[in-house]
Amino acid sequence: MAASRRKTEQVGGIWHAPPDGAMPRALATWRKPDGCTKQWPNSDPRATLACDSYNRSDRLVRICSSTGVNLIQGWYLRSMAQVDTDLPAALSQIAEVVEAALESLLPPSEGAESRLADAMRYATLGGGKRLRAFLVMQSSAIFAVSETCAARVAAAIEMLHAYSLVHDDLPAMDDDDLRRGKPSTHIAFDEATAILAGDALQARAFEVLAEPDTHSDPQARCELVAALGAAAGARGMAGGQMIDMLAEGRTLDGAAVTRLQALKTGRLIQFSAEAGAILGRAPPFQRHLLAAYGRDVGAAFQIADDLLDAEGSTEVTGKTAGKDAAAGKATMVAVLGIERARAQADLLARQAAGHLETFGDRAKLLRALAAYVVTRRN
Amino acid sequence: MAASRRKTEQVGGIWHAPPDGAMPRALATWRKPDGCTKQWPNSDPRATLACDSYNRSDRLVRICSSTGVNLIQGWYLRSMAQVDTDLPAALSQIAEVVEAALESLLPPSEGAESRLADAMRYATLGGGKRLRAFLVMQSSAIFAVSETCAARVAAAIEMLHAYSLVHDDLPAMDDDDLRRGKPSTHIAFDEATAILAGDALQARAFEVLAEPDTHSDPQARCELVAALGAAAGARGMAGGQMIDMLAEGRTLDGAAVTRLQALKTGRLIQFSAEAGAILGRAPPFQRHLLAAYGRDVGAAFQIADDLLDAEGSTEVTGKTAGKDAAAGKATMVAVLGIERARAQADLLARQAAGHLETFGDRAKLLRALAAYVVTRRN
Repeated sequence: MAASRRKTEQVGGIWHAPPDGAMPRALATWRKPDGCTKQWPNSDPRATLACDSYNRSDRLVRICSSTGVNLIQGWYLRSMAQVDTDLPAALSQIAEVVEAALESLLPPSEGAESRLADAMRYATLGGGKRLRAFLVMQSSAIFAVSETCAARVAAAIEMLHAYSLVHDDLPAMDDDDLRRGKPSTHIAFDEATAILAGDALQARAFEVLAEPDTHSDPQARCELVAALGAAAGARGMAGGQMIDMLAEGRTLDGAAVTRLQALKTGRLIQFSAEAGAILGRAPPFQRHLLAAYGRDVGAAFQIADDLLDAEGSTEVTGKTAGKDAAAGKATMVAVLGIERARAQADLLARQAAGHLETFGDRAKLLRALAAYVVTRRN
Repeated sequence: MAASRRKTEQVGGIWHAPPDGAMPRALATWRKPDGCTKQWPNSDPRATLACDSYNRSDRLVRICSSTGVNLIQGWYLRSMAQVDTDLPAALSQIAEVVEAALESLLPPSEGAESRLADAMRYATLGGGKRLRAFLVMQSSAIFAVSETCAARVAAAIEMLHAYSLVHDDLPAMDDDDLRRGKPSTHIAFDEATAILAGDALQARAFEVLAEPDTHSDPQARCELVAALGAAAGARGMAGGQMIDMLAEGRTLDGAAVTRLQALKTGRLIQFSAEAGAILGRAPPFQRHLLAAYGRDVGAAFQIADDLLDAEGSTEVTGKTAGKDAAAGKATMVAVLGIERARAQADLLARQAAGHLETFGDRAKLLRALAAYVVTRRN
């Protein structure tokens, strides 16, 4: 650590929220080898990443301390330039792997209760971006986790995600007749079947995680179950949905919307990114890096989703367009407006990619995904 | 084992369903020391237990083989005579322990999502017989499991049970405004909150099971999660509810009703009885005995519940009375009529108690519970 004292060292990172309601800007402070300090002014966009890194992760601070400001700058620029032409192929390939895993892990359509299995399959198979599955598979690949084990976890998360969509679409909730370009589960079947299918999908997700085939070490399986339970429950996805319901027609400030979305969609996406580290028995600092990536990607994804709702057409997105504004939903688009919301999503996506530089090429598809989530059109 | 050859040994157990639709009766076959066989005629009620024990459990067959018919008869008679005056006190004490565990394990009413925690607490705390919790605590006591660990599992099962009641009462499901003598959760709150509260209760149940405080051995925690997932899912409780929904207004035969109820309520009760064996790392045959007990107690309980619905008043049961018949629900009461359904419940309760004789006094409260579930009035 003595060596680091001789280098330029980051010693502070503060977010400033201008009184005029403009975008918050970061002010990063650095100590130079001669002991003097310098700052990146909050008009310099690089300060955002530096501040964020400083505040979020002990590991990143240590990296800053030992290598100085130039590497931070380097990360930033490399993330900006990240273009990976393999991403669409990888997304499509992982979607196929996970589809096969889901096919084998979902209950077969048998017995007097076959209608339930049919509804679970309808809600889960053959659709969706499989973003969460991709995060599981790619974070697992960093630690050379067996694809079979990772695919089970990916399938479990997609089941849990599918259940949340089925319940979210119910008349008493968002009342949406369309999902992934086809009738919602309660339209294709009925409300009672949709409620039960969601319930059974959640139970199956946890069951799959706990089964021996998911990991040879039961400690890893327990960590997956506990982390998914926390991400899905009252302090996670369900809590976020509750806030979302209560916020309809009311005005939330940016901080409240950020927390709402961190719970509603962020926690599950964060868990998906962390899952590889849990499966790979990675040290805590690596799990934290993936968690930080997941948080930022999740936030970027949600803003991008809200932008699509505000701007997209029903044909392109496969969902009923313009619903959020019609329902008075609390979104960052409502708080910031379209242009600034887009800038915020871009910023978060770059920040997300920055967390994973330490993994080098093993994380290049995850970094590419961060850029993809804010540019996708459906 | 040579010694057993010299004793009367059970060699067969067959159920006969009379063509006139009367109650199925058992025909048990015995080989005497001289090599000849004898049968208990199907008019002898002892044959029922003997047949059931023979068919269900390898362990019981081995016990039969080494000790002969007299012990089987002895079990039967002892179970019949079982009266334990400590049961009400034990039920009440365990209800208090589990209430305290639930209080600490449910999310606090905090933050913008506090309404969700309020609904989860409303649905779970301060009511219910805590039958499932009692099964967990008492099956755990057989194996000297720490009460703290057992209470966490009991609380998790009560959360899962509470979620199933919340969703079951929804307008799209059973549409019941009354539960445990107070307004159902969707009446006290609203439908969306009730759906989310049920969802979050299920997630929390699995999370609690997977947390380190539940058991020092992660293998035990994984077994609990996987078994609860199976009991709650499409081949368990949710599957049973699906069949129940589909059966409304249709006539099911006895076998179909038995399966429906084994899934809908039986699997979770069976899991509750097995949980102690999982926590106690008991050998498989002991887990199987508790599972067999749980299956029979669950079936007896469900028939007793249906009898209460048919005969009880809303004031006494805390639920809307006569709903099953009004909704054309498939129950054993509808199939057999009140008198024969009551006889069947009594038979199942005695059978249940018989499975646990091998545990001696350590299981006396579980045996007493079997008698209680068919005599309770609410």
